[in-house]
Amino acid sequence: MFCLTCPTDPRWAPCAADALDRVLVDHAHCEMKAASSALSLSARCLDAPHAVLPLVALAREELEHFERVLVELERRGLALGPPPVDAYAAELRRRARTSCRGDATKYVLSDRLLVGALIEARSCERFKLLAEELERRGHDAEAALYRELLASEARHYTTLRQLAIDVRGDEPATLRRLGELARLEGEIVASLPVEAAIHG
Amino acid sequence: MFCLTCPTDPRWAPCAADALDRVLVDHAHCEMKAASSALSLSARCLDAPHAVLPLVALAREELEHFERVLVELERRGLALGPPPVDAYAAELRRRARTSCRGDATKYVLSDRLLVGALIEARSCERFKLLAEELERRGHDAEAALYRELLASEARHYTTLRQLAIDVRGDEPATLRRLGELARLEGEIVASLPVEAAIHG
Repeated sequence: MFCLTCPTDPRWAPCAADALDRVLVDHAHCEMKAASSALSLSARCLDAPHAVLPLVALAREELEHFERVLVELERRGLALGPPPVDAYAAELRRRARTSCRGDATKYVLSDRLLVGALIEARSCERFKLLAEELERRGHDAEAALYRELLASEARHYTTLRQLAIDVRGDEPATLRRLGELARLEGEIVASLPVEAAIHG
Repeated sequence: MFCLTCPTDPRWAPCAADALDRVLVDHAHCEMKAASSALSLSARCLDAPHAVLPLVALAREELEHFERVLVELERRGLALGPPPVDAYAAELRRRARTSCRGDATKYVLSDRLLVGALIEARSCERFKLLAEELERRGHDAEAALYRELLASEARHYTTLRQLAIDVRGDEPATLRRLGELARLEGEIVASLPVEAAIHG
């Protein structure tokens, strides 16, 4: 899906659907982190003012999703609890940082936007797999939630990818870099155990 | 207005209306900081899970305001630029911290919510003064923006004040503390020069 180089293990969706409560708690934290990350990116975009408004709109949408998942947690009597370790996102950011070519703000910022785009692409792929699995099991309400959210993740992927191109000002170089980062992302996904977590 | 102990200097609204461009830029940054602050507070509310959803909704509303002000900046051809120093909020947070009684999470968190409530109350008072001044000058579109936003600030004041009471679990003590912090806030406002800034 999109630029992803490694499809999710087919065991993941059944594992996630078996432990949907755990996935929902993890998912809530992912939405919160995505909102914080978009907000922090928007504050770094003073050299690229046209990027501020789309990033703030994206952060606002992530908060809307966070609220929707929180309501679902409340309905199920689940506590949010402390954020779980997200080895996937941490490792992706670390590898992107160490492989970043150039110190200029535009390279660093463009890379951060591409990492955000990849995380959205992976979430989108996983939400689709989970929605299909939940439909197979007849859990239509939960499937509908994930179907709706995956459409937003797809838009966010496109927004972040385009902003990365705009910020760097060189479309072919940005897309080459996206390909490199997508390979790193695929290696990380392949190395992580199959778990009941959005990026597990 | 609300619990404020020191009304805004009557010279402030004409000064702000004279330099509305500068006020709008400052205002945009205030909305961004309010959103970040509500989001950071929600992440600290793991001991008070009922506070998470209202704080996230508040952060989302602040982002909606930020987007509205950004659109107005774009319309006027104004750049957001780096965030100006907000001596008012920094000093209020510093004084609240040094005068906080008790180290328990609930005291610190309740105090942070009360500081947030006071900032909302002051913004609400200022938006009202500015809307009235802009109406007097016939700037109806800008006045309408501030009229609409002041209604949200009033709601946010009430939400944060109530969450502070809930978190501390002692209404009379929380309201006494709100009175103390409101006196500190009034001293800070009285000590700052009259400037074309939301909290100037």
